[in-house]
Amino acid sequence: MKTAGLTAVAAMAGVPSIAMNRIKTTEKKHLFNLGIASYSLRKFETEEALNMSKKVGLNYVCLKSMHLPLDSSQEEINRVNNLIKDRGMTLSAGGVIYMKDEASVDEAFEYAKKAGMKMIVGVPEHELLKYVEKKVKKYDIILAIHNHGPGDEKYPSPESVYEKIKKLDKRIGLCHDIGHTKRIKLDPVVETEKYLDRTYDFHIKDVNKAEADGQNIEIGRGVIDIPAFLKLLIAKKYSGLVSFEYEKDADDPLAGLAESVGYVNGVLASI
Amino acid sequence: MKTAGLTAVAAMAGVPSIAMNRIKTTEKKHLFNLGIASYSLRKFETEEALNMSKKVGLNYVCLKSMHLPLDSSQEEINRVNNLIKDRGMTLSAGGVIYMKDEASVDEAFEYAKKAGMKMIVGVPEHELLKYVEKKVKKYDIILAIHNHGPGDEKYPSPESVYEKIKKLDKRIGLCHDIGHTKRIKLDPVVETEKYLDRTYDFHIKDVNKAEADGQNIEIGRGVIDIPAFLKLLIAKKYSGLVSFEYEKDADDPLAGLAESVGYVNGVLASI
Repeated sequence: MKTAGLTAVAAMAGVPSIAMNRIKTTEKKHLFNLGIASYSLRKFETEEALNMSKKVGLNYVCLKSMHLPLDSSQEEINRVNNLIKDRGMTLSAGGVIYMKDEASVDEAFEYAKKAGMKMIVGVPEHELLKYVEKKVKKYDIILAIHNHGPGDEKYPSPESVYEKIKKLDKRIGLCHDIGHTKRIKLDPVVETEKYLDRTYDFHIKDVNKAEADGQNIEIGRGVIDIPAFLKLLIAKKYSGLVSFEYEKDADDPLAGLAESVGYVNGVLASI
Repeated sequence: MKTAGLTAVAAMAGVPSIAMNRIKTTEKKHLFNLGIASYSLRKFETEEALNMSKKVGLNYVCLKSMHLPLDSSQEEINRVNNLIKDRGMTLSAGGVIYMKDEASVDEAFEYAKKAGMKMIVGVPEHELLKYVEKKVKKYDIILAIHNHGPGDEKYPSPESVYEKIKKLDKRIGLCHDIGHTKRIKLDPVVETEKYLDRTYDFHIKDVNKAEADGQNIEIGRGVIDIPAFLKLLIAKKYSGLVSFEYEKDADDPLAGLAESVGYVNGVLASI
């Protein structure tokens, strides 16, 4: 290293060195909350799934039905809510919930109300959207519609969601899955910027290629530009949820999920 | 969000939006290699420890004696070397090796030579340093001396190493453990800059407080300014090793190690 001498000279002359001149990076710059889509932990019992989320520092939980079935009794809902509260965590939403008919819409909103969820992440049939809008107004519960990429005939892209909901109540919006956006060969950062005013949640993930058969992978190892995505959310003062959905290694997802969370926190500390 | 309209106007006017204007972050900016200090995986058999390192993407291995005993036969050394090569990994060093007398110095250098290690991470008694220097010259193997923080009477700080070795052969240098530096209430970034010309390896970690009883914790959750540390290494074109030593959760370290690696990679993608 030839620079050590220069550094010593700089220090003697009172010139701040790189080490002395740095900015502290511990301040939280983002307004959004990091959470877990519990589908990531679909092979685990509810309590174990919550423990795993807590271990990796994800305290906002979107529960999938295997962790709290849609037909749960109030007593069962209370039990799970207490498991969440006991861990200092927050139940942010339920989903992804598929809505095929009016009865399943009714069930979803009653379930969310009983659980105290402020949001449903869902996939309603197109012809149910007017009916869903009535429920959103009645219950004052947000519905964030989830895009699913190539092969999804209803909502393949964020645009396909937005086009269907733009004239509806503003509490109907997007849960933008950036992995599925990448798989349909759109740029997640560009699509995020377009529809951010109606986005209430993200499924953050990475994929190994921008193709229909792209596979979910640890965040940072794939092809999605996560720093650019997070920079955009900070610049636009996005204040909703960003939920990790780690689909790889279903039987043993903890290490890959932890690496993904670490990566995002490392980016957030540096941008 | 009030910004969506402005974004649309900017797009129509041909003004690049944040999303369009970004820089790709996939280029490797650093010259150093990330590795594992296998002490992190001290409760696991050698093969399992290598699998865990590989899983989190750490391919440069510094083997601690429980994974390759100092008195191993050439046959056993070859077996472990093949395990490493079969996984596409590199044996970077052995250690930390404590050297109490000339016989243990002899053993360490013979061991390193037999294993093809280019470096020993070690702690020699002060009075052995002249003897060690002869061995370094004879074998052309680097000795990187490890600081151990408060309570270490031999090498508590990077400075205490440097003062003892500055006039010796340049192949005697530092393995700077930034956690122990923080626990002795020095700034790891400042100390890194001072001695970087004689540093060949780092033990990268985080601690929960800058006190003697500070505990090892997932990187990013503690008090060490990791982005500033990595920025410095990049600015100074450091080209040695940066080895993760994750001491927490000895029985189940994989998630915390993975989170730590993810954090560092997230920082590296963003600075």
